[in-house]
Amino acid sequence: MPKISQRGQIMPPSPIRKLVPYAEAAKKKGVTVYHLNIGQPDIETPKPVLDAVRNSHFPILEYSHSAGNESYRRKLTTYYGRFGISLDHNQIIVTTGGSEAIIFGFMACLDPGDEVIIPEPFYANYNGFAVEAEVKVVPVTSGIDSGFALPPIADFEQKITPKTKAILICNPNNPTGYLYSTEELNILRDICKKHNLFLFSDEAYREFAYDGTTLSALQLEGLEDNVVVFDTISKRYSACGGRIGALVTRNKTLLDSVMKFAQARLSPPSFAQIAAEAAVDLPADYFDGIKAEYKSRRDLLVKRLNEIPGVFCPNPGGAFYAMAKLPIDDADKFCQWLLEDFSHEQQTVMLSPGTGFYATAGLGKQEVRFAYVLNLASIDKAMTTLSKALEVYPGRS
Amino acid sequence: MPKISQRGQIMPPSPIRKLVPYAEAAKKKGVTVYHLNIGQPDIETPKPVLDAVRNSHFPILEYSHSAGNESYRRKLTTYYGRFGISLDHNQIIVTTGGSEAIIFGFMACLDPGDEVIIPEPFYANYNGFAVEAEVKVVPVTSGIDSGFALPPIADFEQKITPKTKAILICNPNNPTGYLYSTEELNILRDICKKHNLFLFSDEAYREFAYDGTTLSALQLEGLEDNVVVFDTISKRYSACGGRIGALVTRNKTLLDSVMKFAQARLSPPSFAQIAAEAAVDLPADYFDGIKAEYKSRRDLLVKRLNEIPGVFCPNPGGAFYAMAKLPIDDADKFCQWLLEDFSHEQQTVMLSPGTGFYATAGLGKQEVRFAYVLNLASIDKAMTTLSKALEVYPGRS
Repeated sequence: MPKISQRGQIMPPSPIRKLVPYAEAAKKKGVTVYHLNIGQPDIETPKPVLDAVRNSHFPILEYSHSAGNESYRRKLTTYYGRFGISLDHNQIIVTTGGSEAIIFGFMACLDPGDEVIIPEPFYANYNGFAVEAEVKVVPVTSGIDSGFALPPIADFEQKITPKTKAILICNPNNPTGYLYSTEELNILRDICKKHNLFLFSDEAYREFAYDGTTLSALQLEGLEDNVVVFDTISKRYSACGGRIGALVTRNKTLLDSVMKFAQARLSPPSFAQIAAEAAVDLPADYFDGIKAEYKSRRDLLVKRLNEIPGVFCPNPGGAFYAMAKLPIDDADKFCQWLLEDFSHEQQTVMLSPGTGFYATAGLGKQEVRFAYVLNLASIDKAMTTLSKALEVYPGRS
Repeated sequence: MPKISQRGQIMPPSPIRKLVPYAEAAKKKGVTVYHLNIGQPDIETPKPVLDAVRNSHFPILEYSHSAGNESYRRKLTTYYGRFGISLDHNQIIVTTGGSEAIIFGFMACLDPGDEVIIPEPFYANYNGFAVEAEVKVVPVTSGIDSGFALPPIADFEQKITPKTKAILICNPNNPTGYLYSTEELNILRDICKKHNLFLFSDEAYREFAYDGTTLSALQLEGLEDNVVVFDTISKRYSACGGRIGALVTRNKTLLDSVMKFAQARLSPPSFAQIAAEAAVDLPADYFDGIKAEYKSRRDLLVKRLNEIPGVFCPNPGGAFYAMAKLPIDDADKFCQWLLEDFSHEQQTVMLSPGTGFYATAGLGKQEVRFAYVLNLASIDKAMTTLSKALEVYPGRS
């Protein structure tokens, strides 16, 4: 039998999905599982977005332009314009989900062996994309005690080597919900300027900022050739299955290169581009309602968590995630135990172990990520269940 | 300004799309351009396939399973069953177009520096995927004089090194239309068994076989752990924009590895999976009509080409492409000249230069690829135009 590649062996499995068999087994036993483990919103996709596809009329489901339909890219410039970001439609390459934007960015900016610095904890799939592109992830640690603020500038500079080509942030952050301040973004700008680095900014959760706002990296002056934004409609419009994202940069050389990767895979999905284009025309108050809903959920989740003895959860300013420290020995064991060995009134909770979001071994063992993608009543019940679980968990510390 | 990667620089641009600006300029001058250059069929997408999406009802456009909807994968087993191919639905991973299936196959089977042998001429985007995966494409040449038959076994064995991990074929072939015989497939089976190689088989054009049939690599006995099929609905149902493909293999270790790549990018597009699932239920005679249409086009194209003095076009057994040898000095120059400097009765032809399909420098300079994706009347006019062009082309040889 021919052997699979070394790369195929070291490719990390999804740390979020590995608990799925235990959740399925729990459900088979009749236990209700509150899924606070994945970023699949329960919010309905806006009807006009789905209707645009349902009412579409064309005889052939053709390839689109490799960079995405021009009409959609032009419309996206008006979307970014609302944030004060001025773009030409040729500075946007539509991708198959935000995932493909990240892959294209890694491929076109970094060579095998090159290094990208990422504040940890970070979105676990960055590890997978790094394996595909053969690049090395170098973490700088942000701590839960400081609410996951940007690590000190010295921590970044200490990690910079001749192989360092980029810094990657996610803002608002997954998994911490942290919202970078203008001061922090300016620090990143200065580091990238000084060391001639790309600044990759994953802005999947741009609209979800609850206490004040955050800048887009595209608004950092003087950094136009360094900034590459990874974007997606997935969370914005509860349209994860559309698989429509975008890579946005003003660096012309980079755009030309990314276009070659885009041409090789022919085009992004056509149906969902119709949906995405319609989404830009949603009324301005669309996000107000969604944000109010998520903010209530956050407020409830964080309050309930901090009321549980031994639990600490900093208040996240954005996205729909929170990382909390629990009085436990091992987050992986605890999350599995919740599904395998525990239930309270035939209910349990599915969470993501913190370890999956750290690159540094040993970190995150007492932390778990909560995705507040369930309604208030479910979050309330889930928190009651969790507090009961922590009372009886044998590995309580 | 930070530099883009070496990989981003050597990534090849699409050889097919580089003539686009010349075609656009010709159209601006009022010239009708017959597009025989790309594999975008003019055949309508079957209405039930589009209607399945238009009539779909769901409130949230969710991520699907990373391997694709289970209902679709189960249905695909019945599709393969019609060819006598017995599969379990877990042996199918739904991908974002055939493109992603190829990338996943390269990534999971080959490491950077490993070699894949491909009979040339071959689908040009294999080069791009090889750059992304950092693997080396090693061509073995099939010649137009033998109608692009499989090169002799000795040619393959001569290319095999300790770095060789796979052979990649496209059957029926793009760009030659060649249909591999059972004898040829058995030869490939023996080579792969003997040298412990993966056999990648790109079967995008499976249904388009006009004179007899061809086996799927999945039907090669004793090669179950070596065979990886790249599939797609793009050509089968004129659904290129759906971006739904599949990687199919019975190698369990490989499936487990590919699933990790599939999980990293979350899921294939949800809308088009609905379309793809409906497509499996099209009546059995659907392909009869399509095949009859393409066969008439092929017959006309090949007849007209071979009637032009100095032109030789072997009769392709499948797909919807033909490679022809023209009495010209340089196919790239000729294809550009057709758009830039020539027209006959305000009409011209857009073709793909043969050079883009060869990895060996200097080959294909007198060859061009025709995609017969236009109706008979257009093909007829295009051939008249081409014959006039060859009469006056200054680089005629």
